[in-house]
Amino acid sequence: MFHANDNYLKLRGSYLFSTVARKVREFKEAEPDKSVISLGIGDVTQPLAPVIIDALHDAVDEMAHADTFRGYAPDLGYEFLRHAMAEEDYRARGCDIQDDEVFISDGAKSDSGNIQEIFSDRDVIAVCDPVYPVYVDSNVMAGRTGTFLEDSNTWSDVVYMPCTEENGFAPELPERTPDIIYLCFPNNPLGTVLTKSQLQTWVDYANRVGAVIIFDAAYEAYIQDDPNAADEDRIPHTIYECEGARTCAIEIRSFSKNAGFTGVRLGATIVPKDLKDQNGTPMHDLWARRHGTKYNGAPYIIQKAGLAVYSPEGRKQLGEQVGYYMENAKMIRTSLQKAGYTAFGGVNAPYIWLKTPQGMTSWDFFDHLLEKVQVVGTPGSGFGPHGEGYFRLTAFGTHEDTKEALERIRTL
Amino acid sequence: MFHANDNYLKLRGSYLFSTVARKVREFKEAEPDKSVISLGIGDVTQPLAPVIIDALHDAVDEMAHADTFRGYAPDLGYEFLRHAMAEEDYRARGCDIQDDEVFISDGAKSDSGNIQEIFSDRDVIAVCDPVYPVYVDSNVMAGRTGTFLEDSNTWSDVVYMPCTEENGFAPELPERTPDIIYLCFPNNPLGTVLTKSQLQTWVDYANRVGAVIIFDAAYEAYIQDDPNAADEDRIPHTIYECEGARTCAIEIRSFSKNAGFTGVRLGATIVPKDLKDQNGTPMHDLWARRHGTKYNGAPYIIQKAGLAVYSPEGRKQLGEQVGYYMENAKMIRTSLQKAGYTAFGGVNAPYIWLKTPQGMTSWDFFDHLLEKVQVVGTPGSGFGPHGEGYFRLTAFGTHEDTKEALERIRTL
Repeated sequence: MFHANDNYLKLRGSYLFSTVARKVREFKEAEPDKSVISLGIGDVTQPLAPVIIDALHDAVDEMAHADTFRGYAPDLGYEFLRHAMAEEDYRARGCDIQDDEVFISDGAKSDSGNIQEIFSDRDVIAVCDPVYPVYVDSNVMAGRTGTFLEDSNTWSDVVYMPCTEENGFAPELPERTPDIIYLCFPNNPLGTVLTKSQLQTWVDYANRVGAVIIFDAAYEAYIQDDPNAADEDRIPHTIYECEGARTCAIEIRSFSKNAGFTGVRLGATIVPKDLKDQNGTPMHDLWARRHGTKYNGAPYIIQKAGLAVYSPEGRKQLGEQVGYYMENAKMIRTSLQKAGYTAFGGVNAPYIWLKTPQGMTSWDFFDHLLEKVQVVGTPGSGFGPHGEGYFRLTAFGTHEDTKEALERIRTL
Repeated sequence: MFHANDNYLKLRGSYLFSTVARKVREFKEAEPDKSVISLGIGDVTQPLAPVIIDALHDAVDEMAHADTFRGYAPDLGYEFLRHAMAEEDYRARGCDIQDDEVFISDGAKSDSGNIQEIFSDRDVIAVCDPVYPVYVDSNVMAGRTGTFLEDSNTWSDVVYMPCTEENGFAPELPERTPDIIYLCFPNNPLGTVLTKSQLQTWVDYANRVGAVIIFDAAYEAYIQDDPNAADEDRIPHTIYECEGARTCAIEIRSFSKNAGFTGVRLGATIVPKDLKDQNGTPMHDLWARRHGTKYNGAPYIIQKAGLAVYSPEGRKQLGEQVGYYMENAKMIRTSLQKAGYTAFGGVNAPYIWLKTPQGMTSWDFFDHLLEKVQVVGTPGSGFGPHGEGYFRLTAFGTHEDTKEALERIRTL
């Protein structure tokens, strides 16, 4: 008789954002006249840029004619997009990444959920706390996290690296040595960053102890480069700016936030050929095999849209889009601070991490905001125990909604 | 120190179709003047139908304006498509499938590779032999298949169900009771079908022993309905036409072959809420959780294209497309038989399964066809030990290429 994967049964409640969505839906049903503004889920609101729309239409037209129709895409991605990313995101920054080290996918969420699969189920993971839930949940489902400890709200076999006000939201090297380290900078949910020298410390550590870093760079487009900063103080756009990263790091890229592809679906994962486990197995080959067996390539029309991101016109239009959201980020940060809140992030990232007032729990503050002023955010505790007492707002709304939401919060 | 998932290292060589592609590429490099015709990989050649193109353009235009732009799709699929499929593919055939039992995905390959994940890694799988490689390989990667036995070319913990000329390519109930049974009808690679009474035997068996059937219905659009057939002799379009399937079957659907979406990527998996493991765990919830955690929904524009498949105009245009390929199938079958080959399938499916001449091995015949007449097919042995001595041709070429390939084979 067949059996369910009992690791799934260990999962805690439902996925954070599903719970948020359910609460909002229930509120709207109960109070249909009230207008709810969401600064919760990190979903973009600006329409696709003209350059992307044109690329999509052109590619659709190609699919209408036998001589330009495209069937199965290469499992690992079209050469044109792998080349553009390797060249523009890496080699142009002096990072040695080859075209065939770029794997195109349907998005960073899939890749961050699936990447753990190429590692042993006995490997120990380390995550920042708070953290994007997919890293932990996908490892729970794979049976890699041990048992859930109700008291501490943590998993017995996971190494947690607290990111707190005290350590400037920069995780410290863990006492227990992990095998797989998840890092995300600019950080979701904190909106904070690491400097190049801080990230170099992690690369050196990973190489020393033989760990792999899964580096989630989904928000790199939001980094505000400071031309006057010393090299070590710069904020790295990719982990491969750090020396030695080719032997210890996998990087995940998204088109969701730099190009508004949340509903279009496109991402990429970089697995350098120099990344080998202790037996010399190249992880590049395993990820290629996973793609080949369980994935059939991202749609041609969407990969063509991805290519348009790298055109001069694409850079201009998408730079403006990122700028639009960063104006929101600035507005949220300064407005909250004026209203007496303690708020972090929002300078090199589209997220603002604020302390709940009067020591409220994160979910209490969620309910409070929803019920009193109909503003939706994301409870910090949903991202991990050290997120308790914090709350995430995103800069992905429209200017109008963001302004209105801040005005409502001010009146609280 | 991190370790590779050593189950991956057990995989045999590279994925079948990657090997075929490599051999073809190498031949073309060596003999650039010769024109190669592929009737190998099951990729379509007809461009997308006008109704699909229109739907794509319309949806792209929606993405260009703030008031119609769509960000993150619902993880499980847009209601409009879940409803259309449940209504048109199931309820219209008298099958009790609810909208929320339909999970939209980026394709049947992903779903057939990922579905095993919601089951225990101690469950035993049964597969037809020959079989679509993804079912076995995805279970190898999950550590569910034991060790590879070089002598028999099989896995120690997999139950094989031979489909041979002797049993009319209908698998017999296995001696060792499996937990998870993969069935695909119309069959890939055989091109053969089961009648409703034959499939009912499997549903009854699964319910009796507590097994789950993963039913791959990717090719149902190719079934030629016979209005004069008795009910038990009809060829079922879905396993839910069989009584009791709701408690023992998951069904996988594809848009690749009925609508030419091989490069567009859209599929669906049906998990009835009545499907529960022996502890009463509803597999529906587990699959929903997998989607929620590791997937971010199929692109809006592509789900809209999927909806167009169900419009009256869509049905007409896509019916003609399927008819086009079925003319090829008939041409291949009859032409091969005239040339003295023994050939099966191609009546209710786009695949023709032929016996290699003079007892050649499948790969020898592959090389022979490629080198002598530059026709590419798929070696039967790549689908399993009982595929040895057979060869698969697909009906997805153009009429012109198919005709030319058959003429070349005739001259051999």
